[in-house]
Amino acid sequence: MGLFMAKEEANDQYTFLKENEIVEYVKKYGLFQPQEQVTVTEVSDGKINHVYRLAGTEKTVIYKQAVPYARTVGESMPLPIDRVRIEAKVLEEYDRILPGSAPKVLHLDEKMAIAVTEDLSPMEVARGAFLKGAESDRFAADVGAFSAKTLFYTSDYYLDSITKKEKKTYFSNAGMQQLTEELVFDRPFAFHDSNFFEEELRKDVLMLSQDDRLRLEVAKLKHKFMTKTDALIHSDLHSGSIFVDDKKTVVFDTEFACFGPFGFDLGQFIANLYLSGIGTPAYEKKRFDESLETWYAFRQTFSHLWKTESSERYTEVDGYLTAVLDEIFSDLLGYAGCELIRRSIGIAQIEDLNYEQDDKARAVRRRKCVDLGKYLIKERHNIHSLEQLEDWFV
Amino acid sequence: MGLFMAKEEANDQYTFLKENEIVEYVKKYGLFQPQEQVTVTEVSDGKINHVYRLAGTEKTVIYKQAVPYARTVGESMPLPIDRVRIEAKVLEEYDRILPGSAPKVLHLDEKMAIAVTEDLSPMEVARGAFLKGAESDRFAADVGAFSAKTLFYTSDYYLDSITKKEKKTYFSNAGMQQLTEELVFDRPFAFHDSNFFEEELRKDVLMLSQDDRLRLEVAKLKHKFMTKTDALIHSDLHSGSIFVDDKKTVVFDTEFACFGPFGFDLGQFIANLYLSGIGTPAYEKKRFDESLETWYAFRQTFSHLWKTESSERYTEVDGYLTAVLDEIFSDLLGYAGCELIRRSIGIAQIEDLNYEQDDKARAVRRRKCVDLGKYLIKERHNIHSLEQLEDWFV
Repeated sequence: MGLFMAKEEANDQYTFLKENEIVEYVKKYGLFQPQEQVTVTEVSDGKINHVYRLAGTEKTVIYKQAVPYARTVGESMPLPIDRVRIEAKVLEEYDRILPGSAPKVLHLDEKMAIAVTEDLSPMEVARGAFLKGAESDRFAADVGAFSAKTLFYTSDYYLDSITKKEKKTYFSNAGMQQLTEELVFDRPFAFHDSNFFEEELRKDVLMLSQDDRLRLEVAKLKHKFMTKTDALIHSDLHSGSIFVDDKKTVVFDTEFACFGPFGFDLGQFIANLYLSGIGTPAYEKKRFDESLETWYAFRQTFSHLWKTESSERYTEVDGYLTAVLDEIFSDLLGYAGCELIRRSIGIAQIEDLNYEQDDKARAVRRRKCVDLGKYLIKERHNIHSLEQLEDWFV
Repeated sequence: MGLFMAKEEANDQYTFLKENEIVEYVKKYGLFQPQEQVTVTEVSDGKINHVYRLAGTEKTVIYKQAVPYARTVGESMPLPIDRVRIEAKVLEEYDRILPGSAPKVLHLDEKMAIAVTEDLSPMEVARGAFLKGAESDRFAADVGAFSAKTLFYTSDYYLDSITKKEKKTYFSNAGMQQLTEELVFDRPFAFHDSNFFEEELRKDVLMLSQDDRLRLEVAKLKHKFMTKTDALIHSDLHSGSIFVDDKKTVVFDTEFACFGPFGFDLGQFIANLYLSGIGTPAYEKKRFDESLETWYAFRQTFSHLWKTESSERYTEVDGYLTAVLDEIFSDLLGYAGCELIRRSIGIAQIEDLNYEQDDKARAVRRRKCVDLGKYLIKERHNIHSLEQLEDWFV
C-alpha cells in the first residue's frame, strides 16, 4: 500500500544535549537564574529516555530528553521523539481533569523532544517504595478513581462527538502503540528471543506459543487494543509510573498514552498489584485486597460521573451502565492476564519478580504469574468478580 | 473541556463558484481547452453538495463543490468542507485497492472544496435504475467483494500497525461522522421533529423512543460506530451511492468515509436491499436473495485475503477468522436494523418507500421496515444466518 510515509521523527532542530549543555539550555528558557548554581543528576530508569534532576539553589525540576530509539535495545528499536509532546500534553490533560494527579509541566520543546516537569521528590515511585516495605492506604483506591475520571472525561459519554475525535487525532501515538502491541501481545506468545526467564520455565514459555486456545484470546485482546478508541488511556499504568506517599498519588510517564479500550489501564494496574503480591508473598493477600479497592473505586466513580455528568442521552437507558461496566471488567481481566505474562517472561522485566536470590523460588513465583495470566485471558468471560480469584492469593 | 477548537472549516481561499464561473475555473486547471464550448448542467441530488456535469466537445466530467452546511437543512446544519478532500482521497484509495471500483479523480482543490471526477454516464445510480425495473446480476456480489477488499486492505490484518494508524488520522472525518451518529442512531429513536412518516405511524415512531430494550442495543451500536476503528468504511454505502450496469459496479459519494467497524457498510447496504424489496413487493424475494449473495461474496473474499495476504501472525490461529466473521455478522444485522428504521421514518428519505401513491399501502411498507429493523437490532446475537430472515420476504 505504501501510501503514507512514516512521519519524520528526527528533524533539523533536534540535537541531543549532553549533561554539560543542559544547564545552559534550561537557563535560556528562564527555568533558573542566569548566575544560579545548578547541579545535574541522572535519574533515568534508563529504558527509553534520558532523565535528570536539576537542582538550583531554591528548587529542583525534572528534565527529560527523548532519543529516537529505545536506550536498552538500541537503534534497532526506533521510537518517535514525538512521544515527549504526547507525554507533556497528557500530563496537562490529567492535571486539568483531576488537579494534582500529574506533575506540572514547566517547559515543553517539541522539536528538541525535551520536557521539564515538577520534581515530586521526596515522593517515591510506588514499585520501589513497596518493595522496601512502604505502605499507602490510599494508593489502590486513588488509582481506581483517577482511572474512572480520566477515562470518563475523555470518552464519548462526556465529550461532544467532534471534540472527542479531534482529541483522538491530537493524541495519535502510533509508534509507541506499536511498541506496546509487540511487547505485550506478540513476543511473549511467540517464543521470541528477547523473552527472559529461568531455564526451568522453558517449557512453560514454549507452551505459550503453542496454546491456540490462549492465542485466539490474545489475538482478540490485541485487536481490540489496536482498534477500540473508548478514551484516553495511559497505556503503561503500573506501580513504576506512579508516585506515592500517604497524602497523594501522582501519575507520570505518560509517553505511551493514546486512545484505547476502557479496560486496558485497569488491567495493567491490577496485574502489577498481583505481580507485587506474588513476588513478595508476605504482601500477597494485601495486594489482592488492593485490587478489589481499585475496581470498586473505579466502579463507584465511573457510575457517579455517568449518572451526573453525561452528555450522551442513551446513558439514561436502564442497563446500559451495567453493560459498559461488564465489558470493562472482562477486558481488564484479559489485559491483566497479558501483563502478568509479559512482565514475568518478556523483555520488560520488573524488580518484583527478580530480587529473590533463590532460583527455584523465583521460578515458582514467575510460573504462578504465567498460570494466573493464562487463566484470566481464557476465562475472562466466566469471571464476574475479582473475589472469585481469591484462591490464587492465600 | 473545550480544549480544542473545531477546525476552521471556511478559509480565506474559499469562495462558492456560481454556474457561470465554473467553466473559467476548470479551464484554468487545464480540464478543457481554452476555446472549447463547455455546457454546465446541475445533477445534484441536492442534499448536501452542488454537483454539475460539464460537457465539452470531446468529453464530460463531474464537477462538485461543497458548501459549509447541508443544502436541504440550511446553515443550521454546518458540515466541514474538508469532506471533499476525504471524498477524493477515498475514491483514490478504492481505485488503488480495486481498480475501476471508483470514479477517477481528475482534480482536487482542497481550499475551494472542489473535486472533478470521471463521468460514469451512461451508467446509472442503482437506486433509480432498480426503481425503473433495471436488473444487474452482479451488483450484490460485486459490492460484497468490494467491501471485503477495501476493508481487509485497510485493516490491521493487512497494514502494518503504524501505517494503519496514520491512515486513520489522515481520514479523520469528525463532522461527517457526527452527522451519521445523529441521523442514524439518535433522531429516529428520540421522536425528533425532523422525522417523516404517515400520521398512522405516529404510535410506531413514538414507541421507538420508549422501547428501552431497543434503545439499549442502539446505544451499543452507536458507541461501537463512534469508537471502533477496524478499517476504512464508506459509511454511506447504499444503492444511491453506487453506479451499476451489466459490466461493472462503481462506488462513489465517499464523503462520509472514516475508520469504523467492519460490519457497518454491509449492514447499510443489505438494509437498502431490503428497503428496495419491501418498497417494491414484486422484487422482495429477489432483493432477499441478493442479500445472501452480498454476504457470501464478502465472506468468501475476506476469508481468502485473510488466508493469503495477512501480515498479522495471529490470523493463523484456528478459529480466529470465524470469530471475526461472527462479530461482523451480528454487527451488520444491528446496523441494518438502524438503517431500515432511519430510512423509513427519519429525515433522509428514499424514493423506494415514497413513490407508492396509496397512503395505506405506503404506511404498511414503512411499518414493515420499522418492524424488521427492530427485530434485527434486538435479535442480532441470536440470528446466525441471513436465511433465518426468509419469512420476512414472502
